[in-house]
Amino acid sequence: MKVHYECFACAASQCGKIVEMGTDDLELRKKGVIEAAKLMANISEDSVPAIFGSEVFLGVYKVIENDDPFREYKELSNRLAEKVVSDLEREEIDLKTALKLAIIGNVIDFAVGYSPEKIEEDVKAMLREELYIDESEELFEALRNAKTLLYLTDNCGEIHFDRLFLKKLKEAFPHLEIYTAAKEGPIINDATVEDLERAGFEELGEVISTGTRIVGVPLEGVSEEFRAIFEKADVIIAKGQGNFETLSEIEDERVFYLLKAKCRPIARELGVPRGSMVCLRHR
Amino acid sequence: MKVHYECFACAASQCGKIVEMGTDDLELRKKGVIEAAKLMANISEDSVPAIFGSEVFLGVYKVIENDDPFREYKELSNRLAEKVVSDLEREEIDLKTALKLAIIGNVIDFAVGYSPEKIEEDVKAMLREELYIDESEELFEALRNAKTLLYLTDNCGEIHFDRLFLKKLKEAFPHLEIYTAAKEGPIINDATVEDLERAGFEELGEVISTGTRIVGVPLEGVSEEFRAIFEKADVIIAKGQGNFETLSEIEDERVFYLLKAKCRPIARELGVPRGSMVCLRHR
Repeated sequence: MKVHYECFACAASQCGKIVEMGTDDLELRKKGVIEAAKLMANISEDSVPAIFGSEVFLGVYKVIENDDPFREYKELSNRLAEKVVSDLEREEIDLKTALKLAIIGNVIDFAVGYSPEKIEEDVKAMLREELYIDESEELFEALRNAKTLLYLTDNCGEIHFDRLFLKKLKEAFPHLEIYTAAKEGPIINDATVEDLERAGFEELGEVISTGTRIVGVPLEGVSEEFRAIFEKADVIIAKGQGNFETLSEIEDERVFYLLKAKCRPIARELGVPRGSMVCLRHR
Repeated sequence: MKVHYECFACAASQCGKIVEMGTDDLELRKKGVIEAAKLMANISEDSVPAIFGSEVFLGVYKVIENDDPFREYKELSNRLAEKVVSDLEREEIDLKTALKLAIIGNVIDFAVGYSPEKIEEDVKAMLREELYIDESEELFEALRNAKTLLYLTDNCGEIHFDRLFLKKLKEAFPHLEIYTAAKEGPIINDATVEDLERAGFEELGEVISTGTRIVGVPLEGVSEEFRAIFEKADVIIAKGQGNFETLSEIEDERVFYLLKAKCRPIARELGVPRGSMVCLRHR
């Protein structure tokens, strides 16, 4: 997906958040956004928002001298989501519900002072919503015939919902060789390999790094190791907007997107109303 | 006032609004924000937000081929505000109330589908609020001893509240020679000379142009004619944030700011809580 007009103001607003979370020093915040302004001038009609944005954000990290401004936010998200998921796990959950939970996990902002009880309420309300595009049967069919699944994670917090979904996938398709990928290092609130390890993903399969801190899967930026697994996978589940933005650029029918169209550009690209949840095969 | 860190994301967000209001063509909107990104790279620690922003906005106007994206918005604002003020005028209004109304006029977004009745309600609620800094007595004292008043307007809609305040000023200080200034041409929702003329400001004194479309009063950009009147004025009333941003750079005790601190940078600069209404002499 190429940049839409809304991506510019959105990236600028994220830079504002980054400097706020990254430093209390107003002068340093100002230096950070001035750096952002310089870097954002590199935008072109062919920029992919996830890649372009990440490059700007990493430049801002350097100037504000904070390599992980979202650290606390991510820790809180993981803690809360872990609690919520462990409560949900006590109930009987089928595979389709676990898939929806994996999408819902992407929606919740765990770190805005939410209580676990309130989150569970919200999760249950969202479970009653239908997927706007639902190709989950096709996904399950593909997995039945697959040897290898590559699961591309997105954010902290959300990964606990992913873990639940992967557990159900493993039960339903015990023959599957599962790889779960996360970022090489911190970038906004994306999960890193370390986050996956801490959340116990190694019990479910091999945890791998994309080899880059760029959001999504920028194929020209990933490691050779990742690339090899990407090539060999029979099915790829791509969570969230960043993975969609980068992978929609390649024509690859192995990819299934699981996401909520949180912003207008993604909704426009998918041809769905904003806010829709989808499980969609790339075609 | 120099740029604060929040000004970057705010300017980017305004560019987003400009392209949305200026064209329905998504490709042109995208070209517009890419131009904005290039121009915003010129930001420096010493940039004055009103000036810097205006330069970016005018560059975007060119690319989207719309020299006045806020035209309809401004017309609607003027129409609604005129109606509201003509209703208010039927009541007994003292000078201090008229001053507060001039500040309040800056706050209301007339063009978001408001009914005149609802606006009048809001205006009356705001009239009950105290000014956080109130140097109106000092302003009136200065006007008592002044020959010439220069009144710097801000937005469309708001100008009808300014006209009411100026009428009251003229009644209270009939000896005053009044100049009312507006922009040379359209820039966001700022009032132009034409807007003042249409709103009947010529009955109250001489209507003059700042000689530029840049928001506020960028003294290196104004016309010689404006500069001459600016120099000779005994009291200058500067409405709104843009005039504050540009004039706070010069040390001039003739200037009284009438504004609501709508954003954090202005509130921080003035040392008042965000949302405060002030009538403040420059010192």
